[in-house]
Amino acid sequence: MKTKNGASEIAKKIKLIIFDVDGTLTDGCIYMGPEGEAMKAFSARDGMGIALAHKGDIKSAVITGRSSRIMAKRGKELKIDALYQGCVDKRGAYEELKLKLSLRDEEIAYVGDDLNDIPLIQQAGLGCCVGDAVSEVKELALVVADYPGGKGAVREILEFILKEQGKWDSLVSTFTGKKAAEGVSQ
Amino acid sequence: MKTKNGASEIAKKIKLIIFDVDGTLTDGCIYMGPEGEAMKAFSARDGMGIALAHKGDIKSAVITGRSSRIMAKRGKELKIDALYQGCVDKRGAYEELKLKLSLRDEEIAYVGDDLNDIPLIQQAGLGCCVGDAVSEVKELALVVADYPGGKGAVREILEFILKEQGKWDSLVSTFTGKKAAEGVSQ
Amino acid sequence: MKTKNGASEIAKKIKLIIFDVDGTLTDGCIYMGPEGEAMKAFSARDGMGIALAHKGDIKSAVITGRSSRIMAKRGKELKIDALYQGCVDKRGAYEELKLKLSLRDEEIAYVGDDLNDIPLIQQAGLGCCVGDAVSEVKELALVVADYPGGKGAVREILEFILKEQGKWDSLVSTFTGKKAAEGVSQ
Amino acid sequence: MKTKNGASEIAKKIKLIIFDVDGTLTDGCIYMGPEGEAMKAFSARDGMGIALAHKGDIKSAVITGRSSRIMAKRGKELKIDALYQGCVDKRGAYEELKLKLSLRDEEIAYVGDDLNDIPLIQQAGLGCCVGDAVSEVKELALVVADYPGGKGAVREILEFILKEQGKWDSLVSTFTGKKAAEGVSQ
Repeated sequence: MKTKNGASEIAKKIKLIIFDVDGTLTDGCIYMGPEGEAMKAFSARDGMGIALAHKGDIKSAVITGRSSRIMAKRGKELKIDALYQGCVDKRGAYEELKLKLSLRDEEIAYVGDDLNDIPLIQQAGLGCCVGDAVSEVKELALVVADYPGGKGAVREILEFILKEQGKWDSLVSTFTGKKAAEGVSQ
Repeated sequence: MKTKNGASEIAKKIKLIIFDVDGTLTDGCIYMGPEGEAMKAFSARDGMGIALAHKGDIKSAVITGRSSRIMAKRGKELKIDALYQGCVDKRGAYEELKLKLSLRDEEIAYVGDDLNDIPLIQQAGLGCCVGDAVSEVKELALVVADYPGGKGAVREILEFILKEQGKWDSLVSTFTGKKAAEGVSQ
Repeated sequence: MKTKNGASEIAKKIKLIIFDVDGTLTDGCIYMGPEGEAMKAFSARDGMGIALAHKGDIKSAVITGRSSRIMAKRGKELKIDALYQGCVDKRGAYEELKLKLSLRDEEIAYVGDDLNDIPLIQQAGLGCCVGDAVSEVKELALVVADYPGGKGAVREILEFILKEQGKWDSLVSTFTGKKAAEGVSQ
Repeated sequence: MKTKNGASEIAKKIKLIIFDVDGTLTDGCIYMGPEGEAMKAFSARDGMGIALAHKGDIKSAVITGRSSRIMAKRGKELKIDALYQGCVDKRGAYEELKLKLSLRDEEIAYVGDDLNDIPLIQQAGLGCCVGDAVSEVKELALVVADYPGGKGAVREILEFILKEQGKWDSLVSTFTGKKAAEGVSQ
């Protein structure tokens, strides 16, 4: 992972993370069938990452240019807090969501991969991208994942944020049975 | 990307780009189900590239040997200007399209990956191929992408053409909000 | 493959191997369609490995957090001895299975890839993980495969166990027609 | 590609090539859906290779342990000469086919990837395997492809055979328009 411009400090304050879909929550493949889009390939490990973020009091949302029942199904399964589909310009959905949750830009992370993600990567406090994002996006993002989209990039970014917020060890300890260092003190 | 024989000069004049499907717009997998072809795996980033090409006044077409409702669905989504399917010999469709759009060979780019793409790679002004094309095709193409088919090769080739035509920065600026250098002058 | 803490000795006593599904028996992709999960990508070679394990008197089971008719279908095809789906905490299913088969922890291997597999990787005698497991899991597993999940990790681990039990050459000889060394003696 | 034991000389006499399916004509993924096997991922380039082999007077067949309407669909599309499915022991189908076509073992090539392919890799004159075959198979095959199954291995092996038979350049020339060296002489 590559970070810049005080990404660590910003990560500490994140209360909401917003994801693009194709190329970010998926590997960027559009699996088209005879009746329309047949499926999308999500990552089970990204799903676990999102569940951990929720436990760590970080909300999640999706803002995407395409529109599908597929994303609605997966969004419900992941218990995503808000889902905006068919957004030609993603800024409208972003502003609506920011207002609804009473958040400031510096409390929001956004993860994308392509040119239409640039406006929100620039506006959100923590602009992030997947490891195989296009060069223009990589240049502007404060956090560039090592893993490509749909193959663990979202998990990697969530782990970074949760670690910066000091919540990771405690979340992992629910699986290992070991109390995390910061949990032991109380 | 590898280019040869004045590919840059030819790229400047391209008005139409024609794509093969399997192995070019897809990764070459034929996903067969019990009722026939179940789906094709297209690239979301190639889709964005084609949308940008259209904005940059480059037309797009598909000429393919196979035939499927799948390609028709994706072609409609991508707003492809012309779609020819089931072409045993692709030259017939090429000639028809050239005539219909009143274009000369030097204004046409063609992207393919396998032996049956050779006639059009030889005839079109800008014969291009994906990074994992067969060796005979790579030898004849003026432009050989780094990315494999269905994984960004088409985006890479479109970006090359749009950059050579001086349109890329201006197209990107619609996302970044920054006026491109050539746009500022006027 | 990386092994530690006397993995070889433990492998010799294994009578049951339990698999996680997503990321272990599959590559971790959740292929979501408009009507729910469309499919899972299993490995034919893992399937052959499980068939060989059965011939070598090792039982097999699946304990997974998700729930799908897909896994039920594949489980039946593989003749898995026991299938537990929808397990929020996998330990309950593990204890039930251990009791039912009258086994001790040291006779059980478990293969997983993510944080929710940690309790069983710690409890089973032979805690194993796929090559692309998350770092916390790799650290705790006694056996870390080279191959990633859904791409041969399960086959690799089964081959290791069957070799340690001195059964591999004999199983292979049924295909090559050559009597294995240990088979010839009688 | 790695060859041994006079593979070149044997390749010159091949009149029939037989393929395993999962892991050979496909990448070894079993794509299971809620209603059974959802699809198989074949390679478009392998398909072109099989079409060229047919033009070069080499017959093709499939002998597989699994059974699916999927392979029947793809086999019809590829105009495979014979299709045997659900073969627990592949030798029965092999002998039947050999008799039916009045061929000797040295005129037959077989391509496989896993242990159950060993009997036919040993019996056919030209035992071949994909680049990611299991080690026991690689050891016994006379031809080991560089490309993995479902990703060009079959094309690579067919190209090798057609080149050894002096038919490749002539077949390629039907696409390039150039007469092949051996075609010019007459």
